[in-house]
Amino acid sequence: MIGHGFMGAAHSQGWRVAPRFFDLPLRPEMAVVVGRTGAEASAAKWGWREAAADWREVVQRDDIDVIDVVTPGDTHAEIAVAALEAGKHVLCEKPLANTVQEAERMAEAAERAAARGVRAMVGFTYRRVPAAAFARDLVAQGRLGDIRQVRAEYLQDWLADERAPLTWRLQKERAGSGALGDIGAHAIDLTEYITGQRVTALSGITETLVAERPLLAEGVGLSGTASEQRGAVTVDDVALFTGRLASGALASFEASRFRTGRKNALRIEVSGSRGALAFDLEHMNELEFHDATLPSTEQGFRRILVTEPDHPYLAPWWPAGHMLGYEHGFSHQVNDFVAAIHEGSQPRPSFADGLHVQRVLDAVQRSSAAGSAWTPVGD
Amino acid sequence: MIGHGFMGAAHSQGWRVAPRFFDLPLRPEMAVVVGRTGAEASAAKWGWREAAADWREVVQRDDIDVIDVVTPGDTHAEIAVAALEAGKHVLCEKPLANTVQEAERMAEAAERAAARGVRAMVGFTYRRVPAAAFARDLVAQGRLGDIRQVRAEYLQDWLADERAPLTWRLQKERAGSGALGDIGAHAIDLTEYITGQRVTALSGITETLVAERPLLAEGVGLSGTASEQRGAVTVDDVALFTGRLASGALASFEASRFRTGRKNALRIEVSGSRGALAFDLEHMNELEFHDATLPSTEQGFRRILVTEPDHPYLAPWWPAGHMLGYEHGFSHQVNDFVAAIHEGSQPRPSFADGLHVQRVLDAVQRSSAAGSAWTPVGD
Amino acid sequence: MIGHGFMGAAHSQGWRVAPRFFDLPLRPEMAVVVGRTGAEASAAKWGWREAAADWREVVQRDDIDVIDVVTPGDTHAEIAVAALEAGKHVLCEKPLANTVQEAERMAEAAERAAARGVRAMVGFTYRRVPAAAFARDLVAQGRLGDIRQVRAEYLQDWLADERAPLTWRLQKERAGSGALGDIGAHAIDLTEYITGQRVTALSGITETLVAERPLLAEGVGLSGTASEQRGAVTVDDVALFTGRLASGALASFEASRFRTGRKNALRIEVSGSRGALAFDLEHMNELEFHDATLPSTEQGFRRILVTEPDHPYLAPWWPAGHMLGYEHGFSHQVNDFVAAIHEGSQPRPSFADGLHVQRVLDAVQRSSAAGSAWTPVGD
Amino acid sequence: MIGHGFMGAAHSQGWRVAPRFFDLPLRPEMAVVVGRTGAEASAAKWGWREAAADWREVVQRDDIDVIDVVTPGDTHAEIAVAALEAGKHVLCEKPLANTVQEAERMAEAAERAAARGVRAMVGFTYRRVPAAAFARDLVAQGRLGDIRQVRAEYLQDWLADERAPLTWRLQKERAGSGALGDIGAHAIDLTEYITGQRVTALSGITETLVAERPLLAEGVGLSGTASEQRGAVTVDDVALFTGRLASGALASFEASRFRTGRKNALRIEVSGSRGALAFDLEHMNELEFHDATLPSTEQGFRRILVTEPDHPYLAPWWPAGHMLGYEHGFSHQVNDFVAAIHEGSQPRPSFADGLHVQRVLDAVQRSSAAGSAWTPVGD
Repeated sequence: MIGHGFMGAAHSQGWRVAPRFFDLPLRPEMAVVVGRTGAEASAAKWGWREAAADWREVVQRDDIDVIDVVTPGDTHAEIAVAALEAGKHVLCEKPLANTVQEAERMAEAAERAAARGVRAMVGFTYRRVPAAAFARDLVAQGRLGDIRQVRAEYLQDWLADERAPLTWRLQKERAGSGALGDIGAHAIDLTEYITGQRVTALSGITETLVAERPLLAEGVGLSGTASEQRGAVTVDDVALFTGRLASGALASFEASRFRTGRKNALRIEVSGSRGALAFDLEHMNELEFHDATLPSTEQGFRRILVTEPDHPYLAPWWPAGHMLGYEHGFSHQVNDFVAAIHEGSQPRPSFADGLHVQRVLDAVQRSSAAGSAWTPVGD
Repeated sequence: MIGHGFMGAAHSQGWRVAPRFFDLPLRPEMAVVVGRTGAEASAAKWGWREAAADWREVVQRDDIDVIDVVTPGDTHAEIAVAALEAGKHVLCEKPLANTVQEAERMAEAAERAAARGVRAMVGFTYRRVPAAAFARDLVAQGRLGDIRQVRAEYLQDWLADERAPLTWRLQKERAGSGALGDIGAHAIDLTEYITGQRVTALSGITETLVAERPLLAEGVGLSGTASEQRGAVTVDDVALFTGRLASGALASFEASRFRTGRKNALRIEVSGSRGALAFDLEHMNELEFHDATLPSTEQGFRRILVTEPDHPYLAPWWPAGHMLGYEHGFSHQVNDFVAAIHEGSQPRPSFADGLHVQRVLDAVQRSSAAGSAWTPVGD
Repeated sequence: MIGHGFMGAAHSQGWRVAPRFFDLPLRPEMAVVVGRTGAEASAAKWGWREAAADWREVVQRDDIDVIDVVTPGDTHAEIAVAALEAGKHVLCEKPLANTVQEAERMAEAAERAAARGVRAMVGFTYRRVPAAAFARDLVAQGRLGDIRQVRAEYLQDWLADERAPLTWRLQKERAGSGALGDIGAHAIDLTEYITGQRVTALSGITETLVAERPLLAEGVGLSGTASEQRGAVTVDDVALFTGRLASGALASFEASRFRTGRKNALRIEVSGSRGALAFDLEHMNELEFHDATLPSTEQGFRRILVTEPDHPYLAPWWPAGHMLGYEHGFSHQVNDFVAAIHEGSQPRPSFADGLHVQRVLDAVQRSSAAGSAWTPVGD
Repeated sequence: MIGHGFMGAAHSQGWRVAPRFFDLPLRPEMAVVVGRTGAEASAAKWGWREAAADWREVVQRDDIDVIDVVTPGDTHAEIAVAALEAGKHVLCEKPLANTVQEAERMAEAAERAAARGVRAMVGFTYRRVPAAAFARDLVAQGRLGDIRQVRAEYLQDWLADERAPLTWRLQKERAGSGALGDIGAHAIDLTEYITGQRVTALSGITETLVAERPLLAEGVGLSGTASEQRGAVTVDDVALFTGRLASGALASFEASRFRTGRKNALRIEVSGSRGALAFDLEHMNELEFHDATLPSTEQGFRRILVTEPDHPYLAPWWPAGHMLGYEHGFSHQVNDFVAAIHEGSQPRPSFADGLHVQRVLDAVQRSSAAGSAWTPVGD
């Protein structure tokens, strides 16, 4: 595993726990955690066998089969391409890269690697939330009929306080973009996953609401402590866009770190000719489903607790009604990734899927720069 | 109409509005409002033709066909019996009376009157909330299967403040009982209405949490202004009881004016072998329905907006999705009462139904006095 | 009152009920209802003294002081201008007109009339929902701090069924626009009312999802019965736009009649530097308020039942916890309109406010026609 | 760990994960899992070093410091007492025992062991749900004022289907009681934990709704497969009781496996003179808090996402807004248990606490047998 921030803790939990609940066809071993500083402590804390400082050495090691990339976005391309070329399967955190160019390089590397049986996957783990996977199943079964509209939003508020410091997530050179790439990317991927359709064109606007913030004195988690000095926020705080899906349906998106009181509200509502569904990550064990084929007097959004053994991913966990949490998605991700490696199939989302999301992000920025002009994604 | 407190305003709105939306077979005229003091102002405000001070005269007048009793409970029996004997149809606010003995006299008078084509009905208006009526329909259609359990509660908090003054509703001689008769009676009636079953026996406890309160200086609405002097609260603040329905199913009840933050939460949840439903008066335009015959992965409580034209009482009102409020029940009550008078049928809830509720209230008090011993209602 | 469709019933209820609860300084009399056909039946049903067929005559009558316009949008301008010129106070249903040009004529007429003490108001009644008025109060008191973002949506689903017939609301020549003007106008007005800020520029898209529908055989309510023949839908089914408020804050809007399962979901969420609030017309007696100045462990959206005597408009109604419904807004509107006439003040929303909304609607259509290009509203 | 059913999986996850997030003062090693059959598979699956068949041997082993008891209730007493006498710290699943007599023996053994520095704790893990712990903090800080009423219910529906088979949980000799001890015990413990008060007396009723069920062919999870033969259900399906807390406040309880549509609804609402709070395990990351000291217009139940770093147990987990699940309570339990062992303090809930809960359960059964007569708990 390259990187050991908050995402490193989450991925570690995935690797640690998945084999204890799922019947994996291969037995993962937690070998090395790589970081320029402090990797030893992380390795000890999270239960990795070794720590290392130089990822270039580690991706060449013969005893390593899988590279898990959890660094900031500006290093994804270099690490992932090197790992794939070294014949390692790669799991790479989202968004795939900071630019379309980087993502294209990565997708090409993944395609070449696939020809040699080497697998690459992007870590959009919210696909693995059972309620989201069940939403996709309902759409795929035609329970919603023709999709007419989608509303997708990912709302947080951790920047609403103007004194929150300038972490790497607020710097364009490290993060690529702000709310757009960090959380908007999830909204895009989840919309495309659930509907089975890609965004083809869009009109959007991005905006930085607080232009300057205190520099970071000491980084802890997402926020950290503020210092006396100030620096410029070089990424967006809010991104709003309206896109068209492949079928022609309209989808409107919002990513914001300024929606006061919303902590982690990734919400998707899909409206179709035969039904609708609504998901909210703040109620991640639930899916609301509206069946418009019932008699009018009996219709209504139905709060399904997605904790039944027959729901996706649920069988190995607890009895019905017992909740899963945030990190369970990482165990599901490990399960799916390991299964694909074992079967020799293409895990999804692929690097090509990740490249597409990158192109959507890019189209939003281009549209915003052009006065919200309608802009093709251009896959 | 005899009486002109808050219930007078609600009943007036019912008489005024019902003919404007429903096609009533008879045309009600708002003739006289009766009150010892201030009836003129009420008549003018609410649009009654005349005011009068003596109900005994009014119930004898030839030009009066219907008497609507909205006085405190201690006068219901005398007025209603006199009116029925004078051949007037009677609508009487709930609870029917302050004691079982009074209620028996009233039920007997109603039975005698019915033989002469004179009708009597009790004002449990929450039966006329469309969502409650639709709940009853679902049970009657067997959509819940066998009823296994009921939870019914009516929660308010206007006495949680110890400084709230001693209104007539806190005096046993006027109100008969406290939370039990005032709001508990609604929970009992609504449970019996929705399930189609009566409570046959029970174990309960009642309690006064604040024993002494400031006397009322000037009465306004439910609360009024406090004076310097204090008096004893002689009714219960809370009543809790568990009863058995005719089918054997258990139902647990709570009536409280001390459930902080709950303003008007009349809630009923009925659990059956094939489904369940949940109603909350604070969301009075909704009914939650759980259909346990669906596949396990698709089950969930469904929030039905009970505002469709095919829902009970809804057709003459607004388009789907437009809300009704508290006083609409009084228009529905007028509609049902007038229809029964016209058809010559027995309107429900009858005085016999009201007597039964009175017996349940009495059984709760007897059980409480006997250390919560199991006590038959004894219809 | 000119017109007697569904809006006529609602306005009649407002005129009928307002004087029974509010202390109006003037006593409205329900004089004449005007309609080309069937006005007699409506007059009798709703309690108007007379019926008439020709609005031109009625607006000239000396015994008429107020004209209430509830016809489709294409006739608003002619009627309202004539009535104002005849010295009648005018209450006109929203949207003010079908075009900016008509609205300009009306606003000019209103300005001339105001100089003579004649008042004009637009019927955006959702401003009179107590929870919405309370939301405005909280913003005005600074409880939200600086407004950072707004999300406003009005979602219905009555066109989701492709067999729903072609009523006048789907014809551009009668209705002006579709979801945009019918319900989007409410979202715009309510946003501007609550935030106290106008939309200054925007980017948008409108779309017709079902291009052809059965012609209407017989009109009833919003839907009616379908005939065998089909005709073209000439208005939008969905409108999506992102606008900037006067302070620079971004607001995103959606109006749709295709959001399956949403019956009347006019929802506004306002996010500020010190707090946030959320309103949903499907829970019209509630306001959710988030106070971001509380300790982080105690923050959360608070569901306030806006039924306390100290909440706007509530004092004359029922005790706390008793719900109001859709039509109460029409009583509040009558109260506010009559008060303004009596005081000689400008009632709000004025025709100038209505003209501004019309310009926003127009800007959405222009932006949509120009590939969603950023477009100034141009007040 | 003695036992390896569903609770074994949950406890294993606690031991495995706790050290990866919390800074434990001692480093637990997962040594042996004990089961009469199949322990090897469980050990391999869950990551225990060894498997064994005979718990008597294991509790005597020198290299074992802690015994974790997750067997059915009928074996708790024997195992726990033996382990304590052998000087092992004991964590024992709830309810502590099947009878008061067994529980008394255990509490005495725990008291003797404590004198030697050996610790014993009962596994009421729902105390470790952050929202529940935060609820306790609010009560302890006086934010609710005087507690006036409590409603506590634990609702499930897995027996609503009459074909569900006769597992050990439905047999009195194995499980002691039914809904009462299995889930009602949680409602009792959590009420006492949050309010800081014990139940002193009560009136109750227990009932078996489905008297006979198919025998179990093959056990899987909570349900298993049904065979052709049938047997008698010898435990309660529903338990309802009303109790008095030490301060005199009334608390009403319900435990049911027949509340259709409720999967795991452990709900507690506490009403006090200054505020109220409501918790629902189906929304386990939330706490609703009502502050009755705010102005009346601003009061309302506030949905607090209990995921802030300053909330109990949250600091080592994920950023705010990221959800925890069912099994996190087991990590918190390990953390608290290990800390108490290290500090030499009494972990809570102690065996004495567990004995008290057992006495409450017993009083419910005695009251039910005596026609719901008011019955002292008799600590």
